[in-house]
Amino acid sequence: MSTPPSLASGPEGPRALRPLLDTVLRALDEGARARGGPLPSGGPDAVAARMRDAVGDVLPDQGDPHALHSLVRALAENAADPADPLCAAHLHCPPLALATAADLAASTLNPSLDSWDQGPGAAELEALVTGALAGEVFGDGGGERRRTAPVTPAPPHTTTGTTPTRAPAPPRKPPSALFTTGGTESNQLALLLAREAHGAGVRLVHGANAHHSLPRAAWLLGLPEPVVVPAPAGVLDPASLDEALRQLPGPHIVAATAGTTDAGLIDPLPEIAALCAAHGARLHVDAAYGGGLLFSDRHRALLTGLDAADTVTLDLHKLGWQPVAAGVLAVRDPGDLAVLHHRADYLNADDDTEAGLPDLLGRSLRTSRRPDVLKIAVTLGTLGRDGLGRLVEQVCARAGEFAALVHDHPGFELHDPPTISTVLFRPAHATDAAVAAVRRRLLTDGRAVLGRARLDGRLWLKATFLNPHTRPDDLAALLKLVEGNTPG
Amino acid sequence: MSTPPSLASGPEGPRALRPLLDTVLRALDEGARARGGPLPSGGPDAVAARMRDAVGDVLPDQGDPHALHSLVRALAENAADPADPLCAAHLHCPPLALATAADLAASTLNPSLDSWDQGPGAAELEALVTGALAGEVFGDGGGERRRTAPVTPAPPHTTTGTTPTRAPAPPRKPPSALFTTGGTESNQLALLLAREAHGAGVRLVHGANAHHSLPRAAWLLGLPEPVVVPAPAGVLDPASLDEALRQLPGPHIVAATAGTTDAGLIDPLPEIAALCAAHGARLHVDAAYGGGLLFSDRHRALLTGLDAADTVTLDLHKLGWQPVAAGVLAVRDPGDLAVLHHRADYLNADDDTEAGLPDLLGRSLRTSRRPDVLKIAVTLGTLGRDGLGRLVEQVCARAGEFAALVHDHPGFELHDPPTISTVLFRPAHATDAAVAAVRRRLLTDGRAVLGRARLDGRLWLKATFLNPHTRPDDLAALLKLVEGNTPG
Repeated sequence: MSTPPSLASGPEGPRALRPLLDTVLRALDEGARARGGPLPSGGPDAVAARMRDAVGDVLPDQGDPHALHSLVRALAENAADPADPLCAAHLHCPPLALATAADLAASTLNPSLDSWDQGPGAAELEALVTGALAGEVFGDGGGERRRTAPVTPAPPHTTTGTTPTRAPAPPRKPPSALFTTGGTESNQLALLLAREAHGAGVRLVHGANAHHSLPRAAWLLGLPEPVVVPAPAGVLDPASLDEALRQLPGPHIVAATAGTTDAGLIDPLPEIAALCAAHGARLHVDAAYGGGLLFSDRHRALLTGLDAADTVTLDLHKLGWQPVAAGVLAVRDPGDLAVLHHRADYLNADDDTEAGLPDLLGRSLRTSRRPDVLKIAVTLGTLGRDGLGRLVEQVCARAGEFAALVHDHPGFELHDPPTISTVLFRPAHATDAAVAAVRRRLLTDGRAVLGRARLDGRLWLKATFLNPHTRPDDLAALLKLVEGNTPG
Repeated sequence: MSTPPSLASGPEGPRALRPLLDTVLRALDEGARARGGPLPSGGPDAVAARMRDAVGDVLPDQGDPHALHSLVRALAENAADPADPLCAAHLHCPPLALATAADLAASTLNPSLDSWDQGPGAAELEALVTGALAGEVFGDGGGERRRTAPVTPAPPHTTTGTTPTRAPAPPRKPPSALFTTGGTESNQLALLLAREAHGAGVRLVHGANAHHSLPRAAWLLGLPEPVVVPAPAGVLDPASLDEALRQLPGPHIVAATAGTTDAGLIDPLPEIAALCAAHGARLHVDAAYGGGLLFSDRHRALLTGLDAADTVTLDLHKLGWQPVAAGVLAVRDPGDLAVLHHRADYLNADDDTEAGLPDLLGRSLRTSRRPDVLKIAVTLGTLGRDGLGRLVEQVCARAGEFAALVHDHPGFELHDPPTISTVLFRPAHATDAAVAAVRRRLLTDGRAVLGRARLDGRLWLKATFLNPHTRPDDLAALLKLVEGNTPG
């Protein structure tokens, strides 16, 4: 009988991995050179043809020893590289090399977080990191540094209206957090916790600016049709929220957004929190994008009011420079998580739990679960708060510089100065069709990846800056590309 | 301003990654040596103390450049290494080195599968691989080889009863598949598709032997309380299923299991399929474990009847040797997936879709989504059907050999010869408490990782063989360890 192929771990693991990793690095390099830009040229049909050629038969009878090289090379050649400064469409960050290297160890050891005996160290690491992240959100874990943070200024885009009347009661137990596959799963879990706390009749009330995953989660969980509150200036309007909460029978869960997908705006959290308190509504804040501002002394005050939420979505694969997935749901009252408790004799039998084996099943709706915590812990530990904060400040500064370029250019219209790192702009006097067309032309030619957003009844180009290595030259080049490729 | 830390991709990526990967391999090696066995010694408290020491402050003000080494080393030292032959508790496989190396490329390029412009090549690769996997399940993609596969013999554990009366109608369109985070998410999606096809009153009917994620998914989705059908011999009893379907008002979704978690048994799929057809019930088969038998000419016939299901869960992080996550939901009628269609203007605007940009949002309930397809494609392509089938046959053979050792040993009782690669056994004349205690003692001492299962009213030790490198010596050593550590 032939020797089976090598395993990643065990005593021979590192020796077996080394030449394979060399192959991967070489294939990545070759693929990137063949691409020669932020994304492949030729559009969907050309990409599909190249991938089909590289793959051949997905499951051939006999294997091909070159499949690793050819598939990785093809993937790299046909990737939209988030590390290219002209790849700036989405909340799709370029991962840090150190987070990516750490993630290799997660794949290698393959700990699974559904029982202690599949990942003893990973389980403890997760407990430590979720506790620290929950403390960042709810003010229970930042130590010295947090006391120096400003807490009073209202965030921009705050409309005048209801004033907060009371701070939330201090939690009796330290806050907690769960790792998720991303903001979408975090939002689903937040609504699930609300359903279990308030019954299946709990109604989601969210802004017209909220992420699409919120109404989708309500559908998934069988909740009533959500109520959409207007967001005429791109942020949830507190007066309209007040009216909605007065008129609709409860119970309610209000979802606010800290960092909208379209424009990077932050809802007026203190006023929303006060309205929730006044009306007895539960509050969830989707800070998938904006949550990263917590790491920056300069920008943290934008999140004032966040700690009044019952649950908060974070997403460290956005302003955290992690490979997907790195989602988090922070939960103010850890007692809320009791509803996730779940028993499966093979994973958490009562006598094992009584004998001291940690019970992990209630930390997720998944069973087998990859330790995304490792890359996150390595990043937090290597960069520290200062290093992470600097990255946040760098991308926010780049966005500000790009907005200034747009503002000063007579051929372009700027939507607004950026709140985080998203800039909406459009060629002056262009039709919506022309705006959509220039984006697709740049995509198809493989020259730039820009996003799009509909706001104030018009279509805008969206540049989301998440690359701390982007230079002023790149910003000018991006604008020039748009200028030169707008039809009409 | 200081230079930001290196990114994983872009032109400098491979050069930045190389020394970091060296650090990871060194730390993995050091950690494994320090552990010196299948898992760390000392139990939960000792592991927690070592991890806390290694982590220190989760988010220090100033970063520590050694965090990558110290955290990976600590994780390795405190891991349950699935590549150790004495780590045999769960469906927790040792990943192949080549799958793990491929996964590095996924982390590096960070393509996200929620829109074409975040992962053009990854999107096409996913379409190719999901199509091929769906074809493996539903008989539409195996080409020459599938025609030679036996299709008639009934699987073992088939009780006599209803005989299949008709083959399912051939699908009009090729079957499809979705990637998931694992069997649990696949089961959730299967129930969601059933709910959307038959209404929120659809009732889950499952065996007492089914995975815990099925009733949990019914709770998540707001479905009626599931009906549990007895599984007195470890497999779903068709006569009881018939009775349940006759007596309970529909609509129903029946969930059968191909590879139970406790014993690796396969429900009588042809009879269950015939009952579903007769009663108009929808059929889901959870083949998270057993699905890998499809790759083996020798064992594929155990899955006869699988292609009559509406939906099938596969999990290539079990008999597929992938790092978590590698879940699949195969769907016979691709029209069933239309209910997942979802619109978000920034990801799949109508005019972009009309202009030819692929619409990916309906392929998952997640939004940002890691391309788990890459490692799977590399594995299928490198090993081919023959190579994968050989791995499946090797672990099944190891289980058979271990069962023979147990059977021939006067100090042990064997539950049954294995169907797949799980062996249930217990020290003869031991109490349940002693069975639980020997497992915990071996865990705490860091000497072996065995599972547990309650069957026929008694507690059994469970050995799940997923390591193709396990040798006959290892099997004898495992049995000897249990013999030497059973209390009383």
